[in-house]
Amino acid sequence: MRTILVIGIGAGDPDQLTLQAVRALGRADVFFVLDKGPSAADLVALRRQILDQHLVPDSYRIVEAADPRRDRDPGNTAGYGVAVDDWHARRAELYERMITDEVPEDCVGAFLVWGDPSLYDSTLRILERVEARGAVAFDCEVIPGITSVQALAARHRLVLNRVGGPVTITTGRRLAEDGFPPGVDDAVVMLDAGTALRDLDDPDLHIYWGAYLGTDDELLLSGRVGDVGGSIARTRADARRRKGWIMDVYLLRRDPPPAPSP
Amino acid sequence: MRTILVIGIGAGDPDQLTLQAVRALGRADVFFVLDKGPSAADLVALRRQILDQHLVPDSYRIVEAADPRRDRDPGNTAGYGVAVDDWHARRAELYERMITDEVPEDCVGAFLVWGDPSLYDSTLRILERVEARGAVAFDCEVIPGITSVQALAARHRLVLNRVGGPVTITTGRRLAEDGFPPGVDDAVVMLDAGTALRDLDDPDLHIYWGAYLGTDDELLLSGRVGDVGGSIARTRADARRRKGWIMDVYLLRRDPPPAPSP
Ligand SMILES: C[S@@+](CC[C@H](N)C(=O)[O-])C[C@H]1O[C@@H](n2cnc3c(N)ncnc32)[C@H](O)[C@@H]1O
Ligand SMILES: C[S@@+](CC[C@H](N)C(=O)[O-])C[C@H]1O[C@@H](n2cnc3c(N)ncnc32)[C@H](O)[C@@H]1O
Repeated sequence: MRTILVIGIGAGDPDQLTLQAVRALGRADVFFVLDKGPSAADLVALRRQILDQHLVPDSYRIVEAADPRRDRDPGNTAGYGVAVDDWHARRAELYERMITDEVPEDCVGAFLVWGDPSLYDSTLRILERVEARGAVAFDCEVIPGITSVQALAARHRLVLNRVGGPVTITTGRRLAEDGFPPGVDDAVVMLDAGTALRDLDDPDLHIYWGAYLGTDDELLLSGRVGDVGGSIARTRADARRRKGWIMDVYLLRRDPPPAPSP
Repeated sequence: MRTILVIGIGAGDPDQLTLQAVRALGRADVFFVLDKGPSAADLVALRRQILDQHLVPDSYRIVEAADPRRDRDPGNTAGYGVAVDDWHARRAELYERMITDEVPEDCVGAFLVWGDPSLYDSTLRILERVEARGAVAFDCEVIPGITSVQALAARHRLVLNRVGGPVTITTGRRLAEDGFPPGVDDAVVMLDAGTALRDLDDPDLHIYWGAYLGTDDELLLSGRVGDVGGSIARTRADARRRKGWIMDVYLLRRDPPPAPSP
């Protein structure tokens, strides 16, 4: 039986790999690296650096593949859900082919996933589809990794929740469309193309922002949105222009409504 | 200047320590271990095991302290917030004393935190209070750790969010009081004393449950609440009786309302 390892490698700092992940790297015969967009080259380089640090150079095999492009054609009227579904189907075909072609029976293939596989990553979803297609059988093991949310919290020395309170993790798109999640005073925002950040309209929110966390380019800013919102937006735009891509994440915190007196 | 390291050590599996955490252990002259409740002895033992695995035995010093008890006197009419505040104040005094007495100038003290310091852990809050009191100065560095949420997701091979959707992390107490968070179809529940779990009233929710994750006693169950809810509650009660304590966490997932047709 083939084994597929899905290994979280942390969100930028190669030292944030776990011992379990290092051990898992040693088990794999072949590594699959799929990235897309303008950050792809840099992120692939970081993965190679991790592999070279922990494995005997040339003892391992990397298979890089171009992740199928998502259909963003604005003329596509089928809607967001259908487009994503179709995209996932094409990726399942690709993954199936890679597993069949590159992982012989009784061998181990590994997907190196940015951060943790449980957060805004589709590797596990695609592998589930591959299993459902039934053309190739494999065991699948998941190794957790430090997320960019935790890297953000550590650098700002944050506890994400208030005492006994909830915390919501959401996307820039959701925040821009739906506003601050109801019933929640602490929200972490990922995958923001910069628009939600620009449109924050409550100056009294507190923001804790980080970009390129764990790398040499790391940027950190925090404060009242009314005070630092503009400077974060400018810092973000500058960095993005200079480097060609940006990955950033932030916590928004609002003062909870005063508790009813006892 | 003193340095205080706040080191996330993962939620049960010593292999889920990061390389950064291992390196940080090596920097510390003294380790503070504070636990409470019936699980304390076992959790302290796991920390000692981690230290012995990565450090030369007897080369390090552990300071164990009894965390001040929280005032749970039902006759206390001051309300939950005030009780927690008072409890934190007493803990800040204790931490201040420990740092002053046990960490000489230019030395390094470390708090070993279960899981990640950013999630339902008060170490960072208490240290902030110690700083605010102004009696002892120190630098503080946070090293993230794998949370029980990630351990749960890895074992069930879960992606916590739905495509583009938010996920809320909350407590059993909140869930029992407020019900399912509004606008959210995926909620992770921590710190449940078993009551929220017992009172789940939507049989069509899906639950992914894990207890003692990462340890030899690990328990995993999942399914429709209507099908597996009772058996999870029984498994939980049995395990708790047998072992004297339990730590469990679960994801609740409900089918989102059907998308509007395009
Ligand atoms: C596709 S998601 C993947 C998240 C990843 N699985 C994790 O656990 O962090 C990509 C988003 O993660 C965040 N992100 C990932 N790495 C980051 C980093 N080094 N610094 C800041 N944000 C990062 C950004 O919000 C980015 O848009
Ligand atoms: C005080 S909180 C600390 C959380 C920790 N900071 C983390 O990152 O996971 C304790 C709660 O975490 C969860 N938990 C911690 N370790 C666990 C484990 N090994 N298995 C299951 N749940 C765990 C349980 O919900 C427990 O009530």
